[in-house]
Amino acid sequence: MRMYDLIIKKRNGEELTKEEINFFVENYTKGIIPDYQVSALLMAIYFKKMNARETADLTMAMVHSGDMLDLSKIHGVKVDKHSTGGVGDTTTLVLTPMVASLSIPVAKMSGRGLGHTGGTIDKLESFKGFSVEISENQFINNVNTIKIAVNGQTPDLAPADKKLYALRDVTGTVDNISLISSSIMSKKIASGADAIVLDVKVGDGAFMKTFEDAKALGKAMVDIGKNVNRNTVAVISDMDQPLGFAIGNALEVKEAIDTLKGNGPCDLLELCLTLGSNMVVLAKKADTLEDARKMLMETIESGKALEKFKEFVKAQGGDETQVEDTDKLPKAKYIFEAKAKKAGYITKIHAQNLGIVAMELGAGRATKEDKIDLAVGIVLNKKRGDKVEIGDTLAYVHANDEEKAKIAIDGIMKNYEIGDSYEDNIPLVYDIIK
Amino acid sequence: MRMYDLIIKKRNGEELTKEEINFFVENYTKGIIPDYQVSALLMAIYFKKMNARETADLTMAMVHSGDMLDLSKIHGVKVDKHSTGGVGDTTTLVLTPMVASLSIPVAKMSGRGLGHTGGTIDKLESFKGFSVEISENQFINNVNTIKIAVNGQTPDLAPADKKLYALRDVTGTVDNISLISSSIMSKKIASGADAIVLDVKVGDGAFMKTFEDAKALGKAMVDIGKNVNRNTVAVISDMDQPLGFAIGNALEVKEAIDTLKGNGPCDLLELCLTLGSNMVVLAKKADTLEDARKMLMETIESGKALEKFKEFVKAQGGDETQVEDTDKLPKAKYIFEAKAKKAGYITKIHAQNLGIVAMELGAGRATKEDKIDLAVGIVLNKKRGDKVEIGDTLAYVHANDEEKAKIAIDGIMKNYEIGDSYEDNIPLVYDIIK
Repeated sequence: MRMYDLIIKKRNGEELTKEEINFFVENYTKGIIPDYQVSALLMAIYFKKMNARETADLTMAMVHSGDMLDLSKIHGVKVDKHSTGGVGDTTTLVLTPMVASLSIPVAKMSGRGLGHTGGTIDKLESFKGFSVEISENQFINNVNTIKIAVNGQTPDLAPADKKLYALRDVTGTVDNISLISSSIMSKKIASGADAIVLDVKVGDGAFMKTFEDAKALGKAMVDIGKNVNRNTVAVISDMDQPLGFAIGNALEVKEAIDTLKGNGPCDLLELCLTLGSNMVVLAKKADTLEDARKMLMETIESGKALEKFKEFVKAQGGDETQVEDTDKLPKAKYIFEAKAKKAGYITKIHAQNLGIVAMELGAGRATKEDKIDLAVGIVLNKKRGDKVEIGDTLAYVHANDEEKAKIAIDGIMKNYEIGDSYEDNIPLVYDIIK
Repeated sequence: MRMYDLIIKKRNGEELTKEEINFFVENYTKGIIPDYQVSALLMAIYFKKMNARETADLTMAMVHSGDMLDLSKIHGVKVDKHSTGGVGDTTTLVLTPMVASLSIPVAKMSGRGLGHTGGTIDKLESFKGFSVEISENQFINNVNTIKIAVNGQTPDLAPADKKLYALRDVTGTVDNISLISSSIMSKKIASGADAIVLDVKVGDGAFMKTFEDAKALGKAMVDIGKNVNRNTVAVISDMDQPLGFAIGNALEVKEAIDTLKGNGPCDLLELCLTLGSNMVVLAKKADTLEDARKMLMETIESGKALEKFKEFVKAQGGDETQVEDTDKLPKAKYIFEAKAKKAGYITKIHAQNLGIVAMELGAGRATKEDKIDLAVGIVLNKKRGDKVEIGDTLAYVHANDEEKAKIAIDGIMKNYEIGDSYEDNIPLVYDIIK
């Protein structure tokens, strides 16, 4: 078999066999096939696409390119949740204790973030003493005893995906549904997921800007799941404005705790219930989504989810008194207000730009080497559709540097659009693909 | 400027500017831009094409990537001729002395061949003592005094083309009209040509299999010529069967000499007259193609072209008595016959396969390291449209090895198709593009 022939085949619009896909992924991972042949193939895939079978085969070839996490010692159906990424997305911190409190095992591998804010493990470091790198034994033990653990110490999962992604990133071959979906799914499957709930974000602050694109990506991932026997559900949700109010690490942790206490933003809670009820059904803890939703609401109302979160923080060495008293979380020196210069209705909040404003305040990393400031960020006071008068606070800037705060205030004001009227036509949940 | 942005631009079907093309070619030649980004761009070009302006800019960027031959010391209009390659194509050896004998300077850079037979300089080594690597001074001096010189010692012409071609060859990005035409034209222009006559072959033994493809390539090269002020003419000619009768190095030299003596194959002479008359007009030695053709015929009839050839061989140290007596050229030990097993008409000769048969006899190189056997090859006895009886000789095999000869005989018989009738519908010259 020659890589050259695979390039020609795909270039000419033909289907690659499973053996051909395995050959290419295996030998690329080993360094036998050079980058320049792979980037040519990737560009041919960009133009000629892959069908569902090829995409599933690519996924599994990447899964088998490295270690697979062995979660067989964990009892129950392991359901993983993945978001394609957005601004102020705190769902994981809310969802996982809710689900775990229903005795569904949550064994989460998580990375540090690059972008607007940190990743889940960055955020969890808001708790004093919290260890994001625990041993495999402790990880499995925690999941079996308290049903929840998050680990940043990932083994070499899907190295082919890492290598391919790095190449796609510099050769203009990121934007292809098959390549995006197989990249996401290979990591989830290699992490040991039995079933997967995907939160596919759509809108200004998401990778997918249109519903059609988001739906195609969701469908592609659900198809992969079907092909490789991992029940998969994709929820298409709005990211045209930030989710909840907080954008920033400790700020999002506080918002997650507020939500677990029953005082969180409606959109965040609603999305967690939608994603969570699908997780509960996939974990076979409820027969219908309605039942699952009721069970999840009960975990909030009864305080069980909050208790589970405390238990989780404590089990990984964190200070659980910070959960009870969120004033103990990292706090910024200054809080400033960004005010409306015009009266009317908020017609649009440019989510992606607000994410960049937060990153520049210090909440996120522009490069891997950057250090995150856990305390800083933005808390929105007005969201899409809200009525404002001149001088009303649009958002609060939490900053440790006055100069940066000024830039952020300016950035926030520029990225709120205020008009004479607003007609709500953007749903929180667009569609659910099974 | 970033290579990444150029890839995205072309991938999205946009036009690259001259500055962008120069940036990419210059920095790729220097090794600053990596192969993997260039192969992605090449695949994007494969799918999204380049227009005539981009193609001309690419050509000139490659010309300027290395040395350019300075032929300013040579008097007159330097007209170069290039063939896209075929089987048994001896035109250069016939044409150049014809044209030179009309006082048109022929300053030819030529390489060794890879494929069915050797290149022009391989063939010229059939003459004892012939030097294919002469100094630049001698080269220019010979052209000024006797009007003809061929040199294999090429400086670093169009190194970007060399590097790009090597990459295209292994990444499935050879088959694109802009990339093919700019590759050919950049070498001709860097070699110092003022005007260019192209022999674009079409058919089984050519790179271009259909008239449409050959015409598109011819037009692309003529367009480049127009854009960069090099008058260019493309002749689209038949390569569905070998040209002339001989396939092999000394065998083709003998055929060329026979043609200069007025005893050559009609198709070879006719094609030389067509290509040559365009060269004479471009060199401003005749006003019309009809006049040019008459002048060229006269060089054969008067023996002037043959004398010029002798002069040329002698000037580069070769034994010119081999021209007078072609029995002195390298000769194979054995001559065998491949015979018809069936009566009828020759309906097709698979040119490309016959080329491979000749290569396997030793006439060509499969890899750069292979040594050529100048004596061996094939001489056709029957061509397309000829009537044959059972036992008639289809072709002669000139071999130095009986085993190889047997395989060649078998190969020849397999690649002659004999039918009940033949209707001639393939012209020798399809079209001339100016």
